[in-house]
Amino acid sequence: MVEKNSYIYEIDQQDLDFSQHATISSMVNVQLQTAGRDANRNGFGVGELNEKNYTWVLTRFSMAFERRAVRGESYEITTWIEDINRVTSSRNFSTTIGGIAVGDAASQWCMLDLTTRTAVDLSKLGQYRQNFVIPDRSPLPRMRKIRDIEPHRTMTREVWYSDIDFNGHVNTMRYIDMMFNMLSRDVIADVTRFKFDLQFQHECYVGEVLTVGVEDVDDGYIFAISRESGEVAVRGAFYTAY
Amino acid sequence: MVEKNSYIYEIDQQDLDFSQHATISSMVNVQLQTAGRDANRNGFGVGELNEKNYTWVLTRFSMAFERRAVRGESYEITTWIEDINRVTSSRNFSTTIGGIAVGDAASQWCMLDLTTRTAVDLSKLGQYRQNFVIPDRSPLPRMRKIRDIEPHRTMTREVWYSDIDFNGHVNTMRYIDMMFNMLSRDVIADVTRFKFDLQFQHECYVGEVLTVGVEDVDDGYIFAISRESGEVAVRGAFYTAY
Repeated sequence: MVEKNSYIYEIDQQDLDFSQHATISSMVNVQLQTAGRDANRNGFGVGELNEKNYTWVLTRFSMAFERRAVRGESYEITTWIEDINRVTSSRNFSTTIGGIAVGDAASQWCMLDLTTRTAVDLSKLGQYRQNFVIPDRSPLPRMRKIRDIEPHRTMTREVWYSDIDFNGHVNTMRYIDMMFNMLSRDVIADVTRFKFDLQFQHECYVGEVLTVGVEDVDDGYIFAISRESGEVAVRGAFYTAY
Repeated sequence: MVEKNSYIYEIDQQDLDFSQHATISSMVNVQLQTAGRDANRNGFGVGELNEKNYTWVLTRFSMAFERRAVRGESYEITTWIEDINRVTSSRNFSTTIGGIAVGDAASQWCMLDLTTRTAVDLSKLGQYRQNFVIPDRSPLPRMRKIRDIEPHRTMTREVWYSDIDFNGHVNTMRYIDMMFNMLSRDVIADVTRFKFDLQFQHECYVGEVLTVGVEDVDDGYIFAISRESGEVAVRGAFYTAY
């Protein structure tokens, strides 16, 4: 019988921003680290996949937290695979700090063939993976498509070496940084309860010039990161009045 | 009797770059995390200092490694305080991977009063800190001042929210990223044995525009990161033929 596994992370001082709270990107990072550790434990981590020249790629991510963490705290993150279909695998997370539930997250992944850079049909990888499925839904609302924006502010910047991860494309946390760099420090310092959604549509590579746009809405901010062609690579939505 | 303490870190996939090797900034980061953990253990970590509105600030850093780490490896980092004088404290590090020595690092810190943003006289903080000193030198050469450069290439960029750490100034790893973003991907992919030195002269804050310059030299690269006033904030030197 498969069980939900839990992982513990101490807050590192590198996770804190000027307001002495964990950055949203560091809070996403520990969820993604958890996904990686749990996949490794189940024998389908990136290390194993790379032998076939496959890798996991995040396509959607959603999290809702009561608050950000502070110095001296530890997260305990429990994770399970809710579903595996032909194209995507869904993994959920619930996080406690000091035994108190502080947030939930949900993620959707596809498997990328690094040779062709196209999605792998997960149904062809054998049925044994279904043994790891625990069909418990996350309390988060189902992820809906984040809409197009009419940006109130934009910023343009090149993709550098430090933005690129082991998969050869821009790292998720760097996209998140690009989004939060568009907000005022007062907005960021005041964040308590929040919801943050991310959707990935295209990979971006070193040397590209990206445009980050933000639209202010009543309950938060909606982001789009676009390539020089104008196509949207990543969408984000940050709700501070969730 | 005080002893040298050791700390273990697994390589996280976020530490890897496109070449599947740990970035230099992630390798510096684990040394600095080690400094933080050991200072906490000895009762003079940033958490305790912040109660007095003091913090540790890195002023010089030097590391020489035989190679970069790869996926699946763990660092074991042993650290000790070599010296505490009136203005600075020196902390050394030696790192093994799988029991084999792979590198050394040395660091120099001063204590900053966050109210006045000036250095605290360490001799006034009581003699008990001297109990933690183990006067063993690092095998690294003494850190010498990194010289002025005649840059072959420069890049200008603004300091954003994501560059700023809990101390309210640009984070060390972001300065390192700025430097390595000036090098070609071929240079970075080929790095094995290296030496990397950093010297901090001024703090930089959000909203400033920094200029990163690099001079190519026979055995590596010398960097200077300057503020709009022209004063150099951070110097770096990366030797690939060390």
